[in-house]
Amino acid sequence: MSTVTTYKVTGMTCGHCEGAVTGEISEIEGVTSVKAVASSGEVTVTSAAELDDEAVRAAVDEAGYELVGRA
Amino acid sequence: MSTVTTYKVTGMTCGHCEGAVTGEISEIEGVTSVKAVASSGEVTVTSAAELDDEAVRAAVDEAGYELVGRA
Repeated sequence: MSTVTTYKVTGMTCGHCEGAVTGEISEIEGVTSVKAVASSGEVTVTSAAELDDEAVRAAVDEAGYELVGRA
Repeated sequence: MSTVTTYKVTGMTCGHCEGAVTGEISEIEGVTSVKAVASSGEVTVTSAAELDDEAVRAAVDEAGYELVGRA
């Protein structure tokens, strides 16, 4: 059983940005896949269990972007 | 004695892009410093001698961007 959540992130402009966000969120425990799309600002995260939004916010911040919230 | 040349590059959108271009151009022999600015598309290169534009074009291409020419 896995959970899929889509978040809205501002500031991503290119593939490097997508990679930075993907890399940081992937480090959160329980995350099995991340797909970040700069053009839409949407980041879709698959995880073993429901994620703590604050953990996702911290990861996005660490990458240098801002989490707006769930999409 | 050193040469300073400014090039116009398209496609850079963020600091990661600037870093990618800077990294590739820095590897060209004789280059002593590179400053890439995404907002203007200008890349200023300091080198020991005049650079071969085709070497710069190849480096920019390797980074994933396009050299328009000298600014």
